[in-house]
Amino acid sequence: MPFIEVDENLPGIRALMAFRPETAAPMGGLANVLLRDNEGLTMAEREMIATHVSALNDCFYCRHSHGAIAALYLQGDFALVDDVCNDYRTAHISEKLKSLLSIAGSVQKGGKHVIKEQIDLARSLGASDRDIHDTVLIAAAFCMFNRYVDGLAAMTPEDLSTYPPRARQIVERIWQSHFYQ
Amino acid sequence: MPFIEVDENLPGIRALMAFRPETAAPMGGLANVLLRDNEGLTMAEREMIATHVSALNDCFYCRHSHGAIAALYLQGDFALVDDVCNDYRTAHISEKLKSLLSIAGSVQKGGKHVIKEQIDLARSLGASDRDIHDTVLIAAAFCMFNRYVDGLAAMTPEDLSTYPPRARQIVERIWQSHFYQ
Repeated sequence: MPFIEVDENLPGIRALMAFRPETAAPMGGLANVLLRDNEGLTMAEREMIATHVSALNDCFYCRHSHGAIAALYLQGDFALVDDVCNDYRTAHISEKLKSLLSIAGSVQKGGKHVIKEQIDLARSLGASDRDIHDTVLIAAAFCMFNRYVDGLAAMTPEDLSTYPPRARQIVERIWQSHFYQ
Repeated sequence: MPFIEVDENLPGIRALMAFRPETAAPMGGLANVLLRDNEGLTMAEREMIATHVSALNDCFYCRHSHGAIAALYLQGDFALVDDVCNDYRTAHISEKLKSLLSIAGSVQKGGKHVIKEQIDLARSLGASDRDIHDTVLIAAAFCMFNRYVDGLAAMTPEDLSTYPPRARQIVERIWQSHFYQ
């Protein structure tokens, strides 16, 4: 049960955002800029970084919400998302993405865990300054989102089948806004 | 030296925000809503929560930037801010704030570290749902800001005398906007 009185019909972060719309607006804005962008990193790659960090933070709600969005971008390949969470080093993803997931994992432990060798490796595999910036900030932002959700004990649906329909709604809205903008 | 090419004349998060204004806008907006507000928690209390979490995350730049702002709100009482960072349990602050700093410290470790007993204690000492919400989100947000700054190795001035003048600029701007709005 959530630690504060929120709308019981809304899962996870959505109930918290409805409780305090003043903070919800910039948080939603930040997530949009970081995740709904195909420049440098694809939207699928951005969601995989978010999912990886959420798994490391053991945030069931964010891990499965963003894992489902990532899988939809990947033509429904939920197995690949699971592989990334279990051990990204052996997953069928690019070496560039692996190097960025390594940086994201260090950010999850704490900012000072990132070392120059990780940055140099990512750069040698094609990562730009913007890719490195966005990776660090996506990882840092999910250290916030994950703590927000679990720190207030937000309601987390345990039924995994509830996540893909919601992800589909989000992805369809993104695609529509991209097509019609 | 920062891991990405940023303006060398700007310290800490300011260089990162100049690098990527699209993410800077919502991040600045979130900090403003959470920190520039005297409802429930005073601006000094909000900054003390931010400073405490930044100290726990060993983020020198955020700890001293926000510590200086907190001290200015407290009529220049830097010693009290240091006491909060060293051991808030023995600092001359209210029992309510101590209970919220305890929650913030648990959020810093991870969202699931917060337990109902901490929430119940804060509530018994006068904390509202909004106070508890804002405490958890300030702590979570600084887990993001701290990781952003150190994860990209942003330039961190070591000279402590450089922090109060910058804090004074920020506080004067806040006071002006509050007076003239």
